Amino acid sequence: MRPFSSPSEPPGLFDGVLARGGVRAEVGDAAWLSALLDVEAALARAGSDAGAVPPGVADAIVAACASLAVDIAELSADSAASGNPVVPLVERLRAAVPGEAAPYVHKGATSQDIMDTAAMLVVRRALGPLLDDLRGAADAAAGLAARHRDTPMAGRTLLQQALPTTFGLKAAGWSVGLDEAVARLRDVRGTRLAVQFGGAAGTLAGLGPAGPDVARRLAAGLGLVERVLPWHTMRTPLADLAGALGEAAGVVGKVGRDITLLAQNEVGEVSEGAPGGSSAMAHKRNPVAAVSAVACAAETPGLVASLLASMVQEHERAAGAWHAEWRPLRTLLVATGSAAAWLRAGLDGLVVHPDAMRANLDALLSVLGGPMDLGSAPELVDRCLAARGGK
Amino acid sequence: MRPFSSPSEPPGLFDGVLARGGVRAEVGDAAWLSALLDVEAALARAGSDAGAVPPGVADAIVAACASLAVDIAELSADSAASGNPVVPLVERLRAAVPGEAAPYVHKGATSQDIMDTAAMLVVRRALGPLLDDLRGAADAAAGLAARHRDTPMAGRTLLQQALPTTFGLKAAGWSVGLDEAVARLRDVRGTRLAVQFGGAAGTLAGLGPAGPDVARRLAAGLGLVERVLPWHTMRTPLADLAGALGEAAGVVGKVGRDITLLAQNEVGEVSEGAPGGSSAMAHKRNPVAAVSAVACAAETPGLVASLLASMVQEHERAAGAWHAEWRPLRTLLVATGSAAAWLRAGLDGLVVHPDAMRANLDALLSVLGGPMDLGSAPELVDRCLAARGGK
Amino acid sequence: MRPFSSPSEPPGLFDGVLARGGVRAEVGDAAWLSALLDVEAALARAGSDAGAVPPGVADAIVAACASLAVDIAELSADSAASGNPVVPLVERLRAAVPGEAAPYVHKGATSQDIMDTAAMLVVRRALGPLLDDLRGAADAAAGLAARHRDTPMAGRTLLQQALPTTFGLKAAGWSVGLDEAVARLRDVRGTRLAVQFGGAAGTLAGLGPAGPDVARRLAAGLGLVERVLPWHTMRTPLADLAGALGEAAGVVGKVGRDITLLAQNEVGEVSEGAPGGSSAMAHKRNPVAAVSAVACAAETPGLVASLLASMVQEHERAAGAWHAEWRPLRTLLVATGSAAAWLRAGLDGLVVHPDAMRANLDALLSVLGGPMDLGSAPELVDRCLAARGGK
Amino acid sequence: MRPFSSPSEPPGLFDGVLARGGVRAEVGDAAWLSALLDVEAALARAGSDAGAVPPGVADAIVAACASLAVDIAELSADSAASGNPVVPLVERLRAAVPGEAAPYVHKGATSQDIMDTAAMLVVRRALGPLLDDLRGAADAAAGLAARHRDTPMAGRTLLQQALPTTFGLKAAGWSVGLDEAVARLRDVRGTRLAVQFGGAAGTLAGLGPAGPDVARRLAAGLGLVERVLPWHTMRTPLADLAGALGEAAGVVGKVGRDITLLAQNEVGEVSEGAPGGSSAMAHKRNPVAAVSAVACAAETPGLVASLLASMVQEHERAAGAWHAEWRPLRTLLVATGSAAAWLRAGLDGLVVHPDAMRANLDALLSVLGGPMDLGSAPELVDRCLAARGGK
Repeated sequence: MRPFSSPSEPPGLFDGVLARGGVRAEVGDAAWLSALLDVEAALARAGSDAGAVPPGVADAIVAACASLAVDIAELSADSAASGNPVVPLVERLRAAVPGEAAPYVHKGATSQDIMDTAAMLVVRRALGPLLDDLRGAADAAAGLAARHRDTPMAGRTLLQQALPTTFGLKAAGWSVGLDEAVARLRDVRGTRLAVQFGGAAGTLAGLGPAGPDVARRLAAGLGLVERVLPWHTMRTPLADLAGALGEAAGVVGKVGRDITLLAQNEVGEVSEGAPGGSSAMAHKRNPVAAVSAVACAAETPGLVASLLASMVQEHERAAGAWHAEWRPLRTLLVATGSAAAWLRAGLDGLVVHPDAMRANLDALLSVLGGPMDLGSAPELVDRCLAARGGK
Repeated sequence: MRPFSSPSEPPGLFDGVLARGGVRAEVGDAAWLSALLDVEAALARAGSDAGAVPPGVADAIVAACASLAVDIAELSADSAASGNPVVPLVERLRAAVPGEAAPYVHKGATSQDIMDTAAMLVVRRALGPLLDDLRGAADAAAGLAARHRDTPMAGRTLLQQALPTTFGLKAAGWSVGLDEAVARLRDVRGTRLAVQFGGAAGTLAGLGPAGPDVARRLAAGLGLVERVLPWHTMRTPLADLAGALGEAAGVVGKVGRDITLLAQNEVGEVSEGAPGGSSAMAHKRNPVAAVSAVACAAETPGLVASLLASMVQEHERAAGAWHAEWRPLRTLLVATGSAAAWLRAGLDGLVVHPDAMRANLDALLSVLGGPMDLGSAPELVDRCLAARGGK
Repeated sequence: MRPFSSPSEPPGLFDGVLARGGVRAEVGDAAWLSALLDVEAALARAGSDAGAVPPGVADAIVAACASLAVDIAELSADSAASGNPVVPLVERLRAAVPGEAAPYVHKGATSQDIMDTAAMLVVRRALGPLLDDLRGAADAAAGLAARHRDTPMAGRTLLQQALPTTFGLKAAGWSVGLDEAVARLRDVRGTRLAVQFGGAAGTLAGLGPAGPDVARRLAAGLGLVERVLPWHTMRTPLADLAGALGEAAGVVGKVGRDITLLAQNEVGEVSEGAPGGSSAMAHKRNPVAAVSAVACAAETPGLVASLLASMVQEHERAAGAWHAEWRPLRTLLVATGSAAAWLRAGLDGLVVHPDAMRANLDALLSVLGGPMDLGSAPELVDRCLAARGGK
Repeated sequence: MRPFSSPSEPPGLFDGVLARGGVRAEVGDAAWLSALLDVEAALARAGSDAGAVPPGVADAIVAACASLAVDIAELSADSAASGNPVVPLVERLRAAVPGEAAPYVHKGATSQDIMDTAAMLVVRRALGPLLDDLRGAADAAAGLAARHRDTPMAGRTLLQQALPTTFGLKAAGWSVGLDEAVARLRDVRGTRLAVQFGGAAGTLAGLGPAGPDVARRLAAGLGLVERVLPWHTMRTPLADLAGALGEAAGVVGKVGRDITLLAQNEVGEVSEGAPGGSSAMAHKRNPVAAVSAVACAAETPGLVASLLASMVQEHERAAGAWHAEWRPLRTLLVATGSAAAWLRAGLDGLVVHPDAMRANLDALLSVLGGPMDLGSAPELVDRCLAARGGK
């Protein structure tokens, strides 16, 4: 545990609703600062392994990174002068190491190298709980699909009763979307979270011929992908991540919307296991998990747009568009993670009312006439469950 | 000073860059919580004045609102059960007043009444420093326009030299846009920040015939606009605010972009008074104020889109779209305010280099041939300065 | 009728759904081209009145603008070379006038002057049918409010039955929002649709001292607002317009969503007068007007974001952000207008089912116990109808 | 060539600038209508192969699909009644086949099956020219990288000269981003363009046990991916596509922005081979290709946001969010394709000025002192070119 993280960041006023799950802790200030220092430490180690930094010096830097006490508010204030928090952090780190080690701190790196690589660490760590909750939601949906493979209900198009379907098929559809979101995010995590290392102008100047070797070792040391070139102003990794998060949130929003609709009093086909109360109405049983999931998901398209718009970055470092990514990236992770956590809770506790489904369906069947035709709904559920098999 | 605000919220890791100026303090958790309690207190007072709450009871509620010690993290955690922080806040408030006063706490209100009205208070308070910085930036631009009324420079279209203009006219254009942004936001502040009060379903049930009178007195007590109807799911006030903030940020972004372009080494026509340094390059004189202004402004279009998309709210209270406003609203205020504060700093300290302007212009004139024609540039500056007169 | 408009633009494949109402015809290619030529003609007239263009020459230019036959596809192809359609249009116009008039065509103007001013004409013309449909929808909602002032129904929060309200109050809420959207757009139309005239670098060079006089007369001739300065790269007029359109669409989306929810079979409280059929289900009565209104409205937040993001324009003419406005502006007008037209149709024909409202409400009342309390709902309807009075 | 496509769609007024390249023709009304009929024909064939449609009947339907004369304007007008163009198209098709074949037209399908599957065909066809232009741009960038591997220039961060780099490294960075965009889009094309087939409620009702077999054969017949379940309201394929297009446009915007900056008169390091003129300034050499590329790219983030926001779709068919995809999807394809086509043209004709690069760099070197250090720039170019090898 690093010194600065001890005053942990308690949830803020809206976080009970808007920051459920484990992502928030992984993207908070302490987590970011940890990641920045992890990168500086790994850089010293990589430099040492590549022969560009004396071994003892690297040890001193690594030790300083592990023990540096940072007042985040002071660091933040100091960051205004240069426009990013790495400049004052490196000053503190240089002051904390023995004099002969100071020139080797941050050697060969530019502020953005540290910020971007730390961002990748933060993202990877945040994707842990996020993917866990998405998977949990997918499993819960698949469980509902299995249990209700043959539970008939009215299918609804344009919010009008259409033809019969089964609740199992509806839940199977949810699980397919959630599984796809998981798969896409895993792919991004495995292939797109790349180290950033290029130095001031992206040429690896300052390390002589050792530059590429340091870059390679830095990636390996942190378990990040190595790219052909630095990506200071080619933000494809973030664009892919943003798209994948936006897709995941969209899937969650779809499922959450369905739950709120099914839970309407007049429909009554599902209810939440832990419904929410009201400050004014004792009888309310609000589907608070689904509502909150929808709310968190709704925030994401605008954030994805911000990150995509920020791809237009000038030359070797952008005059604004880089800094413009920091807050949307953090919020996008929290919002998507919170949406997933709420949905998982909602699905885990979902109470299904087959009788109500049947009653609503009967009204439809009387309009349709003839026997109930579920088509291939049960077989489609089987196919879906078979396809997700070992997931 | 309320008890819970004493552990003030220090700036976070990115706030030195992304939350400059006074807005952040006005939209933080302590400020929000203060506003929520201000509304509950004003509601008790309004109820008392309208005869719906016994006078002594109102005093007790007001006193409790002023002295209530709230652990924000606990409140936040408790908010998850109901989906908003007002429910647990009202519980605490009821526990803090004498038993006979408890039933009158929050009387006639629904959670959203308190949240929305508090949001309007938060917005009004945040617009103070925001407008101050926007006006400061406008004044600085107008000062540059006056001082450089006759300073010739190359006009540039599609980033190519076009025809001569003056720096005064360019700066006058900046001041016009900033003045317009100020005027629009002032208009929103004066006419659109409205009290929300309708009770659980927007009918003012629960207060009997006193309902409309309480609503009127609540608006008067808080200095907010009274509307014809509650606006629980008709979010026009927020839409207007969002549009005005997005417009202001767009103006700031335009001016900031111009400064970064003029400050390029190869152009060299302006430089910032307090340029930023680099972690890797001692010679850098980065226009950090303009860069940061551009960065903060770039975050806003996506946030405006989120707020506009959230207008589609169901029936008498939305199943997600209401909660989805909270974070974007806060961030939009901070980003726009920070953009304005950075721009003001950049313009206040802007160093103009007429010689460089002239040198670049000479190259254009040699292509154009003939004498320099500034058109009506100086007269347009005069007109602009005359028009802003007493502003 | 201009020659080029004769091959009128028939509705495209999706326009039956996505481009209802009169806006599309006002923003089509022929309408745009008309507006461009209207501006060139008015410019010649203004130049003549200001003494900068010989009177007979102005007549010739005006005549040519009225009779010029333009092949839009050829013009479009030719526009690629310069990056906007005004350059080849001016060439055609110069070729169409007597030789001595050719130098006076487009005199003192830059392409953007013509495009931006034409855009303002197009917007003003498009706002005609758009406002007409918004007002029609508002009137229809107000009519419903009056007719159902005392029709009780269940109020619903978070898509759960909450407390009783009246359908009149719900419809009154719709009318308030629609009225506000109308008022805001009218304000924009009256105060923000401004002539653009500044010449190549915004200095009014090329017209000598007559420049400001020509600008003034051009504004007067076209009935547009005159601004203190040209606004080539200060896009506040468009930002205000975009915000107002986004707000209007958001209001329409809210009302449309409510209708689709009330029309659910299980709720059954309203139905559309002209419901839509299905390619597969004969029994379907889809609320196609409300669904289409929701669809068109949903497209707008992203378009508003595009226009706001485009405010960051370089120097005296943007290197991309100006061109980036053209398509979103047009689509935003069509989408908002279409949303309004669909909603008007839906509200005009809305069939209300008080019995179903009562049946659903009875279920709620049995949970609540006690007599039905409508609060001040009927009085709020009266207040709303009184407030809109002479509208 | 189908009958309805004969009145081909000529470019519209802005298309010379905003719809360059081959995408527009692939997403126009005629192309969409062709795709709709292709799907109906393939469905008849698949039904026949699966034994659900008599062979001769399928032939008749296929023949009718190939020869049906459709007045698009009439079809569009007729689509308003049902809310989509498939309903009136199926009516026309049924009228065009022999009486005994009519019941087999559209058998087992719902309107959305046809629309969504046609959309996938349209996307696949549009991605042809789009990918071709993206690849062409990547190749052009790689060619510049190879030719200028050792051409020194100033690297620039925050629009300030930073340290030396090479133009080859800058161009290599462009090619990496463009290659990534190509790879991502190819992946989407190969794995995500899926047939939609589920019938009215997604259960494959109406075809009896043959349903899954028809779905499989339909996918195979059209060369589209078969999914586990229908995706009527689980829009992950479109989300992935939208993200990939937004990423591609972002890359194009970044490169275009760089070109406009390098082409500034005061920088002068590149110029376009076919610069644009001005309606007012004979000397202008506008980098119109880069400017237009930037413009088209700028439109995309808002469109991606619209598509992601539309993922929240109700039950088995959305009440608005589905229709809300049609226009943004089309525009996103056109804007991204146009951006790519413009960039390819700009890069293919790019004129590089090493002398100007050197002159600007010399100013930087005189500030830095010491010998020029290009770091590993040339080696990074080699690595990049080697990595793209057989592309």
